[in-house]
Amino acid sequence: MGEWRLKPEDVDDIAVGAAVLGAGGGGDPYLGKLMARRVLERGAEIVLVDPDDVDDESFIVAPAFMGAPVTMFEKLPSGAESVKVIKILEGFMNKSFDYLTPIEAGGLNSTIPLYVGGVTGRTLIDGDGMGRAFPELQMVTFHLYGVKATPMALADEKGNGVILDTIDNYWAERIARMVTVRMGGWASIAIYPMEGRIYKKAVIPKTISKAAEIGRELRDAKNSGRDPVDALLEAAGGFKLFEGKIVDVSRWTEAGFAKGRVEIEGLGDYKGRRMIVDFQNENLVARIDGEVVASVPDIISILDMETGEPITTERLRYGFRVVVAGIPCDPKWRTPHALEVVGPRYFGYNVNYVPIEERIKVLAY
Amino acid sequence: MGEWRLKPEDVDDIAVGAAVLGAGGGGDPYLGKLMARRVLERGAEIVLVDPDDVDDESFIVAPAFMGAPVTMFEKLPSGAESVKVIKILEGFMNKSFDYLTPIEAGGLNSTIPLYVGGVTGRTLIDGDGMGRAFPELQMVTFHLYGVKATPMALADEKGNGVILDTIDNYWAERIARMVTVRMGGWASIAIYPMEGRIYKKAVIPKTISKAAEIGRELRDAKNSGRDPVDALLEAAGGFKLFEGKIVDVSRWTEAGFAKGRVEIEGLGDYKGRRMIVDFQNENLVARIDGEVVASVPDIISILDMETGEPITTERLRYGFRVVVAGIPCDPKWRTPHALEVVGPRYFGYNVNYVPIEERIKVLAY
Repeated sequence: MGEWRLKPEDVDDIAVGAAVLGAGGGGDPYLGKLMARRVLERGAEIVLVDPDDVDDESFIVAPAFMGAPVTMFEKLPSGAESVKVIKILEGFMNKSFDYLTPIEAGGLNSTIPLYVGGVTGRTLIDGDGMGRAFPELQMVTFHLYGVKATPMALADEKGNGVILDTIDNYWAERIARMVTVRMGGWASIAIYPMEGRIYKKAVIPKTISKAAEIGRELRDAKNSGRDPVDALLEAAGGFKLFEGKIVDVSRWTEAGFAKGRVEIEGLGDYKGRRMIVDFQNENLVARIDGEVVASVPDIISILDMETGEPITTERLRYGFRVVVAGIPCDPKWRTPHALEVVGPRYFGYNVNYVPIEERIKVLAY
Repeated sequence: MGEWRLKPEDVDDIAVGAAVLGAGGGGDPYLGKLMARRVLERGAEIVLVDPDDVDDESFIVAPAFMGAPVTMFEKLPSGAESVKVIKILEGFMNKSFDYLTPIEAGGLNSTIPLYVGGVTGRTLIDGDGMGRAFPELQMVTFHLYGVKATPMALADEKGNGVILDTIDNYWAERIARMVTVRMGGWASIAIYPMEGRIYKKAVIPKTISKAAEIGRELRDAKNSGRDPVDALLEAAGGFKLFEGKIVDVSRWTEAGFAKGRVEIEGLGDYKGRRMIVDFQNENLVARIDGEVVASVPDIISILDMETGEPITTERLRYGFRVVVAGIPCDPKWRTPHALEVVGPRYFGYNVNYVPIEERIKVLAY
């Protein structure tokens, strides 16, 4: 694709589209927009390239936020901690990073690399390690290809920095999670430093351009009068699973995760039915009247019924009228090995993964 | 003093004497003996010098164990993690350490630097940062003199490593404590890297030789038939506070600390009285029938009545017959600034610090 220089509306589209793919997680798109927009307003450029254009010898890192998204409203990031964490890791590794990659799709975690790239003059890659958002550090395709999460760095907004070098990616997750709790609920991280050679094999390509397309279709639909949810589902290749009103949200923070469950009472064609969606940062499993209709690693996204805007799990509230969408995950997540890492059983559900395209066929309506 | 080359019996004496000064904390002296003895048995030398002999420009670090001592019985250290953690910090700082210093007096934390010194061929300094043991990282005289605890490194026995660079020593304590919890209850640490110039001002000198003397007097008493507790109190400059039988021990692990309380029923001259000692890794406050008779920063040490051997807090058990000793702390701990860091009020007690020499005078017996 050559180089792609982002315009302000691209940033907005990416933040919204990535939040759709983020399955309720990956951070708030409004915060993401603000941060990436700020860079462009200062006159900096945000430049992306395709994974195919990346040299085998180049050195890549993923900047992101880690923690319970709900704590980000209590203390907002300034962006400085996201730049600092890259420098900490570069200092430790005594190398400099040629490219930045998003680790996941999400309203904030897709845009924060844009911010860091713009501020530090580094090129971004149009791809990520999930094609969606997941709650734990080892839940990335890089992990499936044997890439180590560490050395990784964490930094908070106060100026504290931490470097981890662990024996495996599960230990990176365990220790880093505790550090984010102590840092106040979230931290900026720089993770999965790796060479272009392995990155190109392990990446899920085109996540940013896909997010931009979803966001753009949603924007166009508003202007053209087309139903925004229909436009979004078409752009994302997703399915409508349910439509209704939120009647209950319970949430708790457990070991550094925002966990919870939302209950939705059906409206229209779905009247008389009830959907329950469980989440751990991201939406994990959706049931209608007790029957599973979608599960990780497929994407379950809750959208505002009128505007089609994605609603992250920390923003779900009683009374919202919503559409629940199911979007197929990348095929890399559907192998038996990948399902051990991100399938419903890993999260404690006694449920076999069935691709959403199959589940949709047997829904009774 | 020139160079002091340790003999096997010195190691034993240091482990026991340091456990007396350790106020119930600082790790188990038996484990400490075993580790330091092993080095000598392999033919390595353990060499100490006086703080006065250290160059201003030399670079010093403190190796130690951090965490809840009780968890060390569940997974024993191998010593390898204590060597590794020094290398991690040297790699990060791109400097090598000329000397090792104990951070505190304790059965294990006084001997682990001997072990690391012997294994890596580094010289030890006869001094430490407490003259006793304390539960938190900022409770060292180095902190009082403005030395930063970080960069510090942590390592576990599995091979995980962590580096912290925090804005102050309280943040180092908070984040490192969570990391030790996640690492399984304890970690090897390398902390307070500093130059000889500041070390010489901030150190409490001669802690190791003082520990060796206490241990030697205890050993000699056993051979000569003298009462070991009397010999120990004389060598340590301490006071007998109580004598009795342990009738209750309650303990809990809270935020990475071994907390608890021991109740002792008086015997002999103390019959009819009852002592309660509160601890957080170390003994903090001792009361007889509700009246405070000793408190941090003075040293409260619980000794086996027959042998005079110190009993660390994690080994206290119902039925033990014990003497409770009070030993004056170093004068560096008795300033108003120091008492803000380690006085009884820091630990949540509504008690003014009164030097043990004063408290002893007003005891009714």
